[in-house]
Amino acid sequence: MPDTALYLVPLLGLLGLIFSLYLAYSTLKNDPGPPEIADISRAIRIGATAFMRREYRVMGLTALVFAVFLALVLNVYVTFAFLVGVVCSALSSFIGMSIAIRANGRVTFAARDGLSKALHVAFSGGAVMGMAVVSLGALGIAGTYLCFELLPFTPGPLTVITGYSMGASFVAIFVRVGGGIFTKAADIGADLVGKVEVGIPEDDPRNAAVIADQVGDNVGDVAGLGSDLNQSYTDTIISSLIIGAAAQGVGGVYLGMKGIVFPFLTVANGLVASALAIMTVMLLTKLEKIKPEATFRIGLLVSSVLALLGILILSYFYLGYLGAFYATAAGLIVGILIGLNTEYYTYKKPIHSIVLASETGAATNIIMGLAVGLESTVLSMILLGVGMIVAHHFAGLYGIALSGLGMLSTLGMNMAMDAYGPIADNAGGIAQMSQQHPRIRHITDRLDAVGNTTAAIGKSFASSATAAAAISLLTAYSEAVNIVRLDIRDPRVMAGLFIGGVLPAFFASMVIKSVGRTAQLMVIEVRRQFREIVGLLEGEAQPDYTHCVDIATRGALGQLVLPCLLAISVPFVTILTLGREALAGLLAGCIVCGIFLALFMANVGGAWDNAKKRIEAGEMGGRGSLAHKASIIGDTVGDPLKDTAGPTLDILVQLVATVSLAFTPLFLRILK
Amino acid sequence: MPDTALYLVPLLGLLGLIFSLYLAYSTLKNDPGPPEIADISRAIRIGATAFMRREYRVMGLTALVFAVFLALVLNVYVTFAFLVGVVCSALSSFIGMSIAIRANGRVTFAARDGLSKALHVAFSGGAVMGMAVVSLGALGIAGTYLCFELLPFTPGPLTVITGYSMGASFVAIFVRVGGGIFTKAADIGADLVGKVEVGIPEDDPRNAAVIADQVGDNVGDVAGLGSDLNQSYTDTIISSLIIGAAAQGVGGVYLGMKGIVFPFLTVANGLVASALAIMTVMLLTKLEKIKPEATFRIGLLVSSVLALLGILILSYFYLGYLGAFYATAAGLIVGILIGLNTEYYTYKKPIHSIVLASETGAATNIIMGLAVGLESTVLSMILLGVGMIVAHHFAGLYGIALSGLGMLSTLGMNMAMDAYGPIADNAGGIAQMSQQHPRIRHITDRLDAVGNTTAAIGKSFASSATAAAAISLLTAYSEAVNIVRLDIRDPRVMAGLFIGGVLPAFFASMVIKSVGRTAQLMVIEVRRQFREIVGLLEGEAQPDYTHCVDIATRGALGQLVLPCLLAISVPFVTILTLGREALAGLLAGCIVCGIFLALFMANVGGAWDNAKKRIEAGEMGGRGSLAHKASIIGDTVGDPLKDTAGPTLDILVQLVATVSLAFTPLFLRILK
Repeated sequence: MPDTALYLVPLLGLLGLIFSLYLAYSTLKNDPGPPEIADISRAIRIGATAFMRREYRVMGLTALVFAVFLALVLNVYVTFAFLVGVVCSALSSFIGMSIAIRANGRVTFAARDGLSKALHVAFSGGAVMGMAVVSLGALGIAGTYLCFELLPFTPGPLTVITGYSMGASFVAIFVRVGGGIFTKAADIGADLVGKVEVGIPEDDPRNAAVIADQVGDNVGDVAGLGSDLNQSYTDTIISSLIIGAAAQGVGGVYLGMKGIVFPFLTVANGLVASALAIMTVMLLTKLEKIKPEATFRIGLLVSSVLALLGILILSYFYLGYLGAFYATAAGLIVGILIGLNTEYYTYKKPIHSIVLASETGAATNIIMGLAVGLESTVLSMILLGVGMIVAHHFAGLYGIALSGLGMLSTLGMNMAMDAYGPIADNAGGIAQMSQQHPRIRHITDRLDAVGNTTAAIGKSFASSATAAAAISLLTAYSEAVNIVRLDIRDPRVMAGLFIGGVLPAFFASMVIKSVGRTAQLMVIEVRRQFREIVGLLEGEAQPDYTHCVDIATRGALGQLVLPCLLAISVPFVTILTLGREALAGLLAGCIVCGIFLALFMANVGGAWDNAKKRIEAGEMGGRGSLAHKASIIGDTVGDPLKDTAGPTLDILVQLVATVSLAFTPLFLRILK
Repeated sequence: MPDTALYLVPLLGLLGLIFSLYLAYSTLKNDPGPPEIADISRAIRIGATAFMRREYRVMGLTALVFAVFLALVLNVYVTFAFLVGVVCSALSSFIGMSIAIRANGRVTFAARDGLSKALHVAFSGGAVMGMAVVSLGALGIAGTYLCFELLPFTPGPLTVITGYSMGASFVAIFVRVGGGIFTKAADIGADLVGKVEVGIPEDDPRNAAVIADQVGDNVGDVAGLGSDLNQSYTDTIISSLIIGAAAQGVGGVYLGMKGIVFPFLTVANGLVASALAIMTVMLLTKLEKIKPEATFRIGLLVSSVLALLGILILSYFYLGYLGAFYATAAGLIVGILIGLNTEYYTYKKPIHSIVLASETGAATNIIMGLAVGLESTVLSMILLGVGMIVAHHFAGLYGIALSGLGMLSTLGMNMAMDAYGPIADNAGGIAQMSQQHPRIRHITDRLDAVGNTTAAIGKSFASSATAAAAISLLTAYSEAVNIVRLDIRDPRVMAGLFIGGVLPAFFASMVIKSVGRTAQLMVIEVRRQFREIVGLLEGEAQPDYTHCVDIATRGALGQLVLPCLLAISVPFVTILTLGREALAGLLAGCIVCGIFLALFMANVGGAWDNAKKRIEAGEMGGRGSLAHKASIIGDTVGDPLKDTAGPTLDILVQLVATVSLAFTPLFLRILK
């Protein structure tokens, strides 16, 4: 019989879900505003739901094919866990996005009542996603675990739970890649013609791609980011369960079942900490005197302190070994430091060097941005390395898995802020399109600026947790296929490092190309509409928004399946041609280069974006200056890096690791 | 007593050096041309020698300090080997550049007699460098080896020969970084003001930075590339000696001293093959009917076939084991395939996608270029991995070292073509500046275009050989510090992978920033001269070339020492804080990410460069079109990547590995 404490986890998951629904209710009860706002919001909603429906159909069909494959080569229990993982993950992204596309116009309208009110609505909209992800994650994983634990005729829960993990990765790669291609193709297409060629402002209603751009924020930044973090969260939990079950004890303390229950309790603890932090922020937004940045900082502080406190109590009283607390705390602290490092490189002094370099044109803007982006990864990678050693020092391999849990223990709160960003961005777009009073637009701009900071930090958290989870999965894989020596001097391992090291680059190049191709189609269409629709530029005629949404949709869906298949098939090809050691090496290479590139792409994109924002705020001659033009080019180059290729790399790393581990029984049969 | 066959190596080295001097004589006996050509050539020569003198002074002083440090912590024998390495390497770069800066104007003048004559002069000028590098390398290494073998009171040659290797790396990092910053700062500065702002052609004499740009070709592309390949060559030879001495036998054959003599004989064989190939090309250039591309292809084919034939004979008759041939041939074939892959991505179909993307502006040009650059690394990295497994299959770790030797067995011929490139480039610049007849400029343009192809292939050869040599050094290091298990699952190894993985990025960011900063100073100065010198734009007054040379010189020298010190100090810091396993992991991470980034940067830069060239040749509207402007920005972004940061990464990887191995005795004393 499982530890009774385990029943607490799905229960808290259920409560979290109810809280999430309450947040959704309190968001939706706000006034959707007058027709000029509600109409635009509806257009975005129609585009986003149409895309998600088609994307989910493609994903669902592929998942079914994959499920049949799973049932044939592994067993029906793994298949079941896989499908539960797919459903829970797809559901959390869907819930989050459904609210986001309804919150946007409400935020624009709420801005009439001031900054606090708008912030309140936007944050509560984002918090729906935050709570949905952590609650459905806890519910799904613990539910699946208990189900296989209690049903006597099934194999043990730990042999099938990797199926759930694959399900989450499966959804993540489809939603992230699809949404990422959509959003950036639309964004680049809209900007290149609108801002650069025609010279009209961002989100101008005369631009045919403007609705597609807004839709992109939702399907890419809300649904995509949600599925991404959901997968990091899932993999981190599941890898710590597997490592926990294998660990005999830590620091002289016998673990037994506690090795599995402790991660679950950490998750439950994080859920409560996040919920309390979200409530705190909701209360603070009602006070008009606190700045939005400060509100969020307090929220993060509350969730971090509560989470740490809970973990301390659990380690001492439940586990009886404080080393577990140190390992988990090491992860949380490393995560926070990496977040601060990201903030420094994307918002502080280094941006200034990019701004200055813009004076001599786009080339120097981009060269300096690349240098800043490369440098920004240095401290993060070192921190990850040192954090690993510290976590291992206190609790061995189990400690490394726990450090990943530490990083994500405040995910509910983090995710709420992340999803808040695109809602605020959308609200600003709607304000611009519906030609609201400058005062309203000033408020939405203000909200948007805060959202940018939180987005970059959220991405670096995702990458850090990916590292810890993937290393745990690599260890679990290598033990499952009975690798005794995994020596770097073994040429198979080294060859694996080389091949795995270039995999993220291959994947990124495919995704970037898809964005480029779709963006070019978009440019041609927007140009065509400006040329052919009489009176469009004068504001006397409406552009055909739907056509642009359609181009982005077809571009994203048409170029979605190939990279996903690549990621899934790589472990099979590698183990069958080069052997199990090569696959382990490949995982290691993929982790190191994948995390490096993910951090680089997220940071360099953020840095270019903010350099542009600084120039728009008046530096180097402000809007319309040559420096501004240069900075727009830099920002555009960064777009597919930070919002498409970069974030998908985390998913790639985890998916390859999960597939390697999940198919171990098959590999062992073939290799024997 | 050493094998008598060993004496053959320094003897052949000496003969090679004499051949190199003969080539120099036959280059210099050509007419330097009328004053309008000779004067420009002299201005370039003065700038280049002045820079080299100052650079060598900084390098010499740092080397002396380092030599004292070596003598204190290791011993005087290693110090001696280090200084010999420094002198031989510095000398080969100096000889090569001295001829190149005298050949340039002679090529311009020879173009009056037609393409063949000009090609003949340019190639013979480049061949001086090719032969100087391989001959001085063979002479220096074999001489040092024999010296310590014969003198009875010294430690064995293998314990001190790493000092030579460090010497070569030391020179390489200084000359490559210094020359790289100089050349690209001048190039970017000249282009941004001249081509983009003022709208005058490249190499226009009114541009104040134009002489600095030409000087840069010599100190960066000739001297820098020479020192780079010289170091790859040195490290490859020395690592194969060390691995050869440790290997008991291969494929059931007892090796003994043959394990050391065989690499030496391979080197001697490659020297002869290269010399014969150079002679063939020299003869072919006298025939007017063969195209330059075909001439070079025949040269490469001759050197490859001769080298393979020689290795086959040596393996069968001397070593008595054909596996050594297979391993060496695997390296050579992988090198050629990687070269072809580079050629494909930088000159064939993928370029077309960049050209097309230029139509929608600089942002899409750069996005597509990044995608192409990332993709271009995929096959190369896989080939490196597979090549390693094949080489190891036939001759174990010794095979991996031999595969590196295989790649570089035709270095003399490769290097001749590489050094030919900047000579042809300079000749074109001089033709433009001295306003030669369009027919002459057409010939020099033709020579220059051929040179671009050879340069990119040369870089990928250097990266491939770096991988093989560095892996051998890593193995030698880990055995020297008695690491039994080098398991990826060990968190110290994994942390090392993370930290080593980000080291190339850190180094690259420093170098790129230096280029950016110096280029900005250059832009300001060129702008100032256009503004302040009356009649400059009308061609009635001369700009102040010297000032621009001075800016590039100070920029390069001032920002040279810090990255070099970083590279040298990393192994110390790592082993003292995180331990010997972490340093081994760091080396592995640095190799994988370093080679990946080096290949990426070389290829992406080459691709942008050639996309621009295609547009200039008439595609997408040709010169002056919007697509052309976009492609110039892409080319400029690629400049510091392909000619500064990228090539220095190979050196970084080798330097870190060499320092780790060379200081093993010190580490063992401290760690005990």
